[in-house]
Amino acid sequence: MVIKANDPNRKSWLNVEKDSDFPIQNIPFGVFLTRDDIITIGTRIGNYAIDLGALHQLGYFSEIPLTDDIFLQDTLNDFIADGRITWRLVRNRIAEIFDSNNSILKDNEEHKDRIIFTMEEVEMQLPVTIGDYTDFYASKEHATNVGSIFRDPENALMPNWLHIPIGYHGRSSSIIPSGTPIKRPNGQTKPKGADNPIFGPSKLVDFELEMAFITTDVNKLGETIKLEEAEDYIFGLVLFNDWSARDIQGWEYAPLGPFLGKSFASTISPWILTLDALEPFRTASPEQNPTPLPYLQQSGNRSLDIKLQASLLPENGDETKVTESNFKYMYWTMAQQLTHHTSNGCNVRAGDMMGSGTISGPTKESYGSMLELTWAGKNPITLNDGSERKFINDNDTVILRGYCENNTVRIGFGDCSGKMVPASIK
Amino acid sequence: MVIKANDPNRKSWLNVEKDSDFPIQNIPFGVFLTRDDIITIGTRIGNYAIDLGALHQLGYFSEIPLTDDIFLQDTLNDFIADGRITWRLVRNRIAEIFDSNNSILKDNEEHKDRIIFTMEEVEMQLPVTIGDYTDFYASKEHATNVGSIFRDPENALMPNWLHIPIGYHGRSSSIIPSGTPIKRPNGQTKPKGADNPIFGPSKLVDFELEMAFITTDVNKLGETIKLEEAEDYIFGLVLFNDWSARDIQGWEYAPLGPFLGKSFASTISPWILTLDALEPFRTASPEQNPTPLPYLQQSGNRSLDIKLQASLLPENGDETKVTESNFKYMYWTMAQQLTHHTSNGCNVRAGDMMGSGTISGPTKESYGSMLELTWAGKNPITLNDGSERKFINDNDTVILRGYCENNTVRIGFGDCSGKMVPASIK
Repeated sequence: MVIKANDPNRKSWLNVEKDSDFPIQNIPFGVFLTRDDIITIGTRIGNYAIDLGALHQLGYFSEIPLTDDIFLQDTLNDFIADGRITWRLVRNRIAEIFDSNNSILKDNEEHKDRIIFTMEEVEMQLPVTIGDYTDFYASKEHATNVGSIFRDPENALMPNWLHIPIGYHGRSSSIIPSGTPIKRPNGQTKPKGADNPIFGPSKLVDFELEMAFITTDVNKLGETIKLEEAEDYIFGLVLFNDWSARDIQGWEYAPLGPFLGKSFASTISPWILTLDALEPFRTASPEQNPTPLPYLQQSGNRSLDIKLQASLLPENGDETKVTESNFKYMYWTMAQQLTHHTSNGCNVRAGDMMGSGTISGPTKESYGSMLELTWAGKNPITLNDGSERKFINDNDTVILRGYCENNTVRIGFGDCSGKMVPASIK
Repeated sequence: MVIKANDPNRKSWLNVEKDSDFPIQNIPFGVFLTRDDIITIGTRIGNYAIDLGALHQLGYFSEIPLTDDIFLQDTLNDFIADGRITWRLVRNRIAEIFDSNNSILKDNEEHKDRIIFTMEEVEMQLPVTIGDYTDFYASKEHATNVGSIFRDPENALMPNWLHIPIGYHGRSSSIIPSGTPIKRPNGQTKPKGADNPIFGPSKLVDFELEMAFITTDVNKLGETIKLEEAEDYIFGLVLFNDWSARDIQGWEYAPLGPFLGKSFASTISPWILTLDALEPFRTASPEQNPTPLPYLQQSGNRSLDIKLQASLLPENGDETKVTESNFKYMYWTMAQQLTHHTSNGCNVRAGDMMGSGTISGPTKESYGSMLELTWAGKNPITLNDGSERKFINDNDTVILRGYCENNTVRIGFGDCSGKMVPASIK
């Protein structure tokens, strides 16, 4: 099926500002609360939120096999479970409806009033009920940096790292949409040189610049998938800030991995960009040496050229961009991650989420966490207001952004932001 | 509120065989498919499955504030979210209805026909939709054994172990009810002395004798709970076999913990025994030295005396009991685990599950896994049929059982069983 929605020459009759993340070629999916306090599934063009529930009720999707309430839900899970053919039909149809050459909705003021909101009128929600969330550790530069800081620069990568897309199970309940404040976590830490641990607010809260993909139903328990088909099960991607309390994590993580150092909050951007929309931005994956085992071998352009950045915004200050990275730096691709995840028969369901792990690039300016950017606090960052940061202070807001562009189109994710508020006093 | 359902003198008009796990003092909750192919929430007395959906429709719970469809669901989550007062009212009322001195239902053949099934007529389902599943590592003996086998017997426990109830996030999607076959997982392993990893069926599949508790809604994101109130949020317990592929786990787990070595399947027993039903079997917890930090300090009897065992049943053979342990051996109590879990503000929801970790006792006969029982295969176990086992063979069934008893009452969990079937050929 042709992805007509990606046609780079198409314009919308809705105004799209230059450098908007949301031209008519994007058509992401999200969930929002309208000015009438109704929760609905929607999309976005320019600065407009479009109510897909209302569009469907008014008959605009009558030629597509959809259940009546598919968009009148507080989560995208059922729509995601409908599968890739349905996603394409819907995206293509939305592109038609809002095409500058199509006046059916454009000229219907009553319908427009029910369907179209400005972004200021809506409140974005978590777009999907995440069943299981897995976080990978797929950036070689990040794994090397962390290994160098905490262990041995000469043997920074674990022996398994070049053979396995290393990952671990994360906490689903504390995944929140952009804009939700994050309370600084309390926890056990063991200060350097202390005989015993203490309990109190984390002193080393960090961000992690990640992306995450959302799956449809992939396999039944005991079944596996082949790498060549893995991408068919990926609905789309979000920006992902895997907040980390380094001091809690450092004391708790041996031998079973990160736990409360991560589970206090994880922020995702509210619009899911479909893998279809990102198709024009495919690029070559990093060379893999040694060659992976056969079940993980891939060909073709399995990576995506998504420009990423993170900024710090202090209370009453202005933003400082602290890093610029790219999703294409990931050593292990999404297809390899998903194939590996099912290789033992583990079932993956509609609405499951898989994070990339921190995406660090090859240079110091492209590291994806404060841990790496300040090399565990040794080299603080100076913000535009002259203040220094080793990690994240109370009332700092961290904003992740990401977009793709070529000669004709730019599509992006919008902001993935979260403000760190002070810990509860125990 | 008095837990009238625990009255040890009560008898049921339904026949309960001697040594049954399910006298009228038990009244567990589960979900089953009836002979009419209807899914319902139910309880069990003796060898009878009782349809609570039908009981409610016929008016037997009319004095309790319950929504009409609370039991006509395929999961207990909504009932669990109703909270402890409701659970008690319902258990007490069920005890009344089936009391040998109460003939209202006993003498109503039409109602009995709609409400009561034999266990052979129903098919047990997963009782709860598990949002997040966490596994702890709370048995000191188990942690010491594993540390001795894989690291250093002199420093078997990690430095954090006596200060933190160590835990990690597990995979929810692959949690299955007793009776579901488990396919031997394929995966990456690195044989001793080999230069490179290989991919194929795990050679070292193990069981882990655990219990798990199911929570109601505990806290909102950013909030915490106090230890004294933690047990109020525990709905009940199940037996739990945390199947583990030791060779996959050994190669993948550094530095982020267990992943595909666990996520191919985890089996729970189908009946959830409420914490209320287990109340008469409280017992002292192991002394904790060093004293935990204040947020984890506890008093009173926070442990439960639940006798546990695991048996191996080879194809066409008979059962061999391979271990006998007890839930009371756990060093960290459920109250400490749940309090710790929320201490960073992580939200815990109705239907979340927390495993104990392998429960090993102080003697070789009470170890909770083949890894420990055979000391990583060095001392194979001889089964009743004369065959030897280092780990679990294809077509072996592992059966966990657990029960409490005092002078007047014995209540138990029934079987938690799973058969290992051969791996798919890749």
